Amino acid sequence: MTREKHDRMANAIRFLSMDAVQAANSGHPGLPMGAADIATVLFSKFLKFDPTTPKWADRDRFVLSAGHGSMLLYSLLYLTGYEDITIDEIKNFRQLGAKTAGHPEYGHAAGIETTTGPLGQGVANAVGMAMAERKLADEFTGDLVDHYTYALVGDGCLMEGISQEAISLAGHLKLNKLIVLWDDNKITIDGAVSLSDSTDQRARFEASGWATDAVDGHDPDAIAAAIEKAKSSDKPTMIACSTTIGFGAPTKAGTNSAHGSPLGPEEIAGTRAALGWSAEPFEVPSEILDDWRLVGLNAAKERINWKKRLEESSQKAEFERRMRGELPTGFVSAIADYKKQLVKDLPKVATRKASEMALNVINAALPETIGGSADLTGSNNTKTDQMAPITPDDFSGRYVYYGIREHGMAAAMNGMALHGGIIPYGGAFLIFSDYCRPSMRLASLMEIRNIFVMTHDSIGLGEDGPTHQPVEQLASLRAIPNHNVFRPADVTETAECWQLALESEKTPSTLALTRQGLPAVRKEYSQENMCAYGAYELATASDDAVVTLFASGSEVEIALAAREKLEANGHPTRVISVPCMELFEKQSPDYQKAILGEAQVRIAVEAAVRMSWDRFIGWDGDFIGMDSFGASAPIKDLYQHFGITAEAVVAAAEAKLHKDEA
Amino acid sequence: MTREKHDRMANAIRFLSMDAVQAANSGHPGLPMGAADIATVLFSKFLKFDPTTPKWADRDRFVLSAGHGSMLLYSLLYLTGYEDITIDEIKNFRQLGAKTAGHPEYGHAAGIETTTGPLGQGVANAVGMAMAERKLADEFTGDLVDHYTYALVGDGCLMEGISQEAISLAGHLKLNKLIVLWDDNKITIDGAVSLSDSTDQRARFEASGWATDAVDGHDPDAIAAAIEKAKSSDKPTMIACSTTIGFGAPTKAGTNSAHGSPLGPEEIAGTRAALGWSAEPFEVPSEILDDWRLVGLNAAKERINWKKRLEESSQKAEFERRMRGELPTGFVSAIADYKKQLVKDLPKVATRKASEMALNVINAALPETIGGSADLTGSNNTKTDQMAPITPDDFSGRYVYYGIREHGMAAAMNGMALHGGIIPYGGAFLIFSDYCRPSMRLASLMEIRNIFVMTHDSIGLGEDGPTHQPVEQLASLRAIPNHNVFRPADVTETAECWQLALESEKTPSTLALTRQGLPAVRKEYSQENMCAYGAYELATASDDAVVTLFASGSEVEIALAAREKLEANGHPTRVISVPCMELFEKQSPDYQKAILGEAQVRIAVEAAVRMSWDRFIGWDGDFIGMDSFGASAPIKDLYQHFGITAEAVVAAAEAKLHKDEA
Repeated sequence: MTREKHDRMANAIRFLSMDAVQAANSGHPGLPMGAADIATVLFSKFLKFDPTTPKWADRDRFVLSAGHGSMLLYSLLYLTGYEDITIDEIKNFRQLGAKTAGHPEYGHAAGIETTTGPLGQGVANAVGMAMAERKLADEFTGDLVDHYTYALVGDGCLMEGISQEAISLAGHLKLNKLIVLWDDNKITIDGAVSLSDSTDQRARFEASGWATDAVDGHDPDAIAAAIEKAKSSDKPTMIACSTTIGFGAPTKAGTNSAHGSPLGPEEIAGTRAALGWSAEPFEVPSEILDDWRLVGLNAAKERINWKKRLEESSQKAEFERRMRGELPTGFVSAIADYKKQLVKDLPKVATRKASEMALNVINAALPETIGGSADLTGSNNTKTDQMAPITPDDFSGRYVYYGIREHGMAAAMNGMALHGGIIPYGGAFLIFSDYCRPSMRLASLMEIRNIFVMTHDSIGLGEDGPTHQPVEQLASLRAIPNHNVFRPADVTETAECWQLALESEKTPSTLALTRQGLPAVRKEYSQENMCAYGAYELATASDDAVVTLFASGSEVEIALAAREKLEANGHPTRVISVPCMELFEKQSPDYQKAILGEAQVRIAVEAAVRMSWDRFIGWDGDFIGMDSFGASAPIKDLYQHFGITAEAVVAAAEAKLHKDEA
Repeated sequence: MTREKHDRMANAIRFLSMDAVQAANSGHPGLPMGAADIATVLFSKFLKFDPTTPKWADRDRFVLSAGHGSMLLYSLLYLTGYEDITIDEIKNFRQLGAKTAGHPEYGHAAGIETTTGPLGQGVANAVGMAMAERKLADEFTGDLVDHYTYALVGDGCLMEGISQEAISLAGHLKLNKLIVLWDDNKITIDGAVSLSDSTDQRARFEASGWATDAVDGHDPDAIAAAIEKAKSSDKPTMIACSTTIGFGAPTKAGTNSAHGSPLGPEEIAGTRAALGWSAEPFEVPSEILDDWRLVGLNAAKERINWKKRLEESSQKAEFERRMRGELPTGFVSAIADYKKQLVKDLPKVATRKASEMALNVINAALPETIGGSADLTGSNNTKTDQMAPITPDDFSGRYVYYGIREHGMAAAMNGMALHGGIIPYGGAFLIFSDYCRPSMRLASLMEIRNIFVMTHDSIGLGEDGPTHQPVEQLASLRAIPNHNVFRPADVTETAECWQLALESEKTPSTLALTRQGLPAVRKEYSQENMCAYGAYELATASDDAVVTLFASGSEVEIALAAREKLEANGHPTRVISVPCMELFEKQSPDYQKAILGEAQVRIAVEAAVRMSWDRFIGWDGDFIGMDSFGASAPIKDLYQHFGITAEAVVAAAEAKLHKDEA
């Protein structure tokens, strides 16, 4: 490609981007203009993709980690011929209902591999995608999976802590097909990077086991040579591409005023003059558009060969099932058989152990699960016998030692789920959901299946004390839209919750599990998954109920004990187990009304803060739980100390009953 | 000191630690045993402290970032003679009410400089402490402030992403009086560090602008030489101390089984034999205890000289006020004057702008505020005219460019607040409170004054879309115990909320502020701080109210507009402004009852999820707000699209009124 042609193609990105931002009167022109040369080289010379089949399983993944530069991606998708992104979508940038949201939104348009914007997430997703690629390449032979993962990152991505977790994991695992392109423009929103950072990024990546390179980010040959070299590295590679933010803008280029606001008509006119671009806004001269469309057509050729390989593969059916994300037949009956066994044995185990027991069944039935833990394997009970560790030199295993990197783990799991072919689950203490939260939120926003196994879910963890005792985490996770928070009460509920999590293709799940042992509260086999109701009557009242007790997880046992005493005292009492508030919200109003019931006294019991339970009990209801941080002590002392006991429930109920009588 | 004496002193730490863990039957013996030599050298040869005056302002700060090794710290405090940590407290390790919690809890005992346990937080706190030291050293002359900050970190601290934010900020700011001692024991909970990490930590720190060194962590002379060298470095220093976890334990030393469980009687007996320790559990031979107590006495001598300098200083009164954390006289009247002016001007501004206006008053009155932002200075409106930037070479300013490091910022702010003499505030978008959350939680747990300025607090931010639009963050922050979430509705409420945040010495605050302009809803001057009630009647009903509307922040305007229409339609309606739910929870039951009122219809309005409002409206109440993620579009379209309008409030109220009539 001549330099002139390259420049024209890159300028098409620049003008689409600045014109779209100007029309929207909001957005970020600086990055697309600065990184246009990098993107042009990558898409025209390297990227394996097919705009006509954007979900092609073996495409290279391109992640725009610096998501504010969304117009770079939209321009590329439009120019190379993705159907979803028309010129009208570009014109409609940042408007209600457009596929071209302010930041790239996964699911809005094919070609958007992940939702980015919160900085650092994309590069960590890319690590997960590269892990998935390597894992599937090991599992499926015959060259079905053999692609690269590219991420374009900005200074913000690299300053965010999550990037360190991601790059050190990638370096450790020797993810040599991961290539990070750093848009090294030396500018942040506040001004020069030197206002806030002096990191030698190449040295930092090298310390984390990466190869690095540095090029002029406006020199297409140099960029191409660096990517070529990176493709044959035995380590992941970071290429520092020195660029000018807002390249071409006469007065704003190289300054933070090009970053996050429209350039303005005058500056845009100046840029047109400077770069010799005479086309109207949103018009790409046909010759240039043709050049770009040819890129899209040429890139697609590889897919034909791949398709042949797939057709000839003995693993075709399984590969396609995995990439569709369908669970294997036999899964439902495996869970049913397991549940039948449980009501025979009625084991008294911690729900973290119950989770391990369920996982033994699940991991045998589902080859697509990849387990892991952020350095709490023995505590999270996430590693079953089926799971050998994945190591830097051997990806035949199914278990990842993520290290003390909760945030990086959650984001890598998102990347694996996005890649397809894998259902990731990963463990941490529930308290450390706070560390993973930005990635958990993105899983919810992206509507992907990702399962967070969060153990030690209350003061019940005991001596480690308030720094490790979640009290507000259940409420705060329940507040996230499209996120199912399961808190099972025993072995059977744990199995049911796992089943629901695995079957929720468009909703990520958190399983909140106990450290401490819990008795089996479900004594009869139920073919139906009772947890699917979110809340259900676990114990009925002997007569018209005067008290309804709501509880989840470890406090269901307490509610049941309280019910016995209340019944003995002549107060008919029912117990509602609430393993998943989100699913209860989805039930019919009639079902909800029946579950809430007519009892004059409603009490909720959970060893956590009250907030999410106000829905059930309102201002005047009674809540037996926490209203402060916990404390360091043995578990028994803590439940007594904080008054989370059957006696306290009984006392609260009777006080209310007597008050009503008075 | 002879090697023999050193070993005896270090062994005292080892045996107190393993015996306490054994007695508690839970805890982490491995780190205290492995790091005992490092700690002995640091405390006996370098640390400037006075056990009899543990809050001495110019003491060196020692942060045990690897908080699970709490018995190391408790042993040191006991041995050097801190009154709070008696041998009985050591015996009572991890029991209810003990000062010796599972992880070090700030406030439990003097000498615990910060609460640690969630890994990586401590080293980031230490960065903030070192920033505070340098700032105060610049501000207060005559050698009043001149101390070092030491942090002992483990592998977990260094794998957590927050550590990268912290060390790159420290390296950038050239915090040369910060010395990090890395307990490089090559073991994590899951096994060898090599299972999950291959980072060259020295190279990584050097890439971030640090000096580094590496020593045998069991060689006291080598440790001392490295610390000596670090003290004269012009950069922060990281010393990699190669250690054996569980040093001395015959079979468990050097393995992950020494990390987090009691060693067991047999292994402890073996350790006693191996290290030649014949004393009973919890008994420190008097000669050794004397040696340690002498360390405490000797270290204290420096304080006498410092005290003389203080007495002679012209800045004595101000220095003492600042270290006590008292606000200056004149603050209250400055706010009052400002509020009087506001009701004359009634400016229609975004609350982020109102915050800047309030800060102009505050920063003029309070020299102790240090502002900053995570690279959103112009958006967060956190920088006032009084605030020149702090730069690596000049700490005379009062503003920190934290870079794109929300988590590191929040933890550094915690460190500054803990150091004393400074009231930190820092800005980010509210959505990125998710990134800061673990540090915000610790601020709440530690009961320190720290102010998070979180702007762009709803879908009102518009085009940036759902990745940047908080919908669940208000609820999730309200769920944190001891954390005041303020969401002011106009300029006056913003000023009142700022006043409350600054006056809350034991509760951190989040100010949730709009991007968009809001009319002044408080038209009359009130000497009383109405926001102190948490919720108050902003507009009364014309007659006995049939509708009560609750709203916060930008939705108060909507509630007021709805009230006008409802009143016009003959439905007496009152509006309750709810700037701070936490403060409302603290009012008397009578006040709460009066605010909740008797109106048959209760509706809450907030452009966020419903959860925290259920307290006010219950299951059957109406909520006008969000039940999903937002969308990318101009603000007006979004409020219409999601139905957060006065019309929607009126329709909901009238539907309920008609239903009740039917």
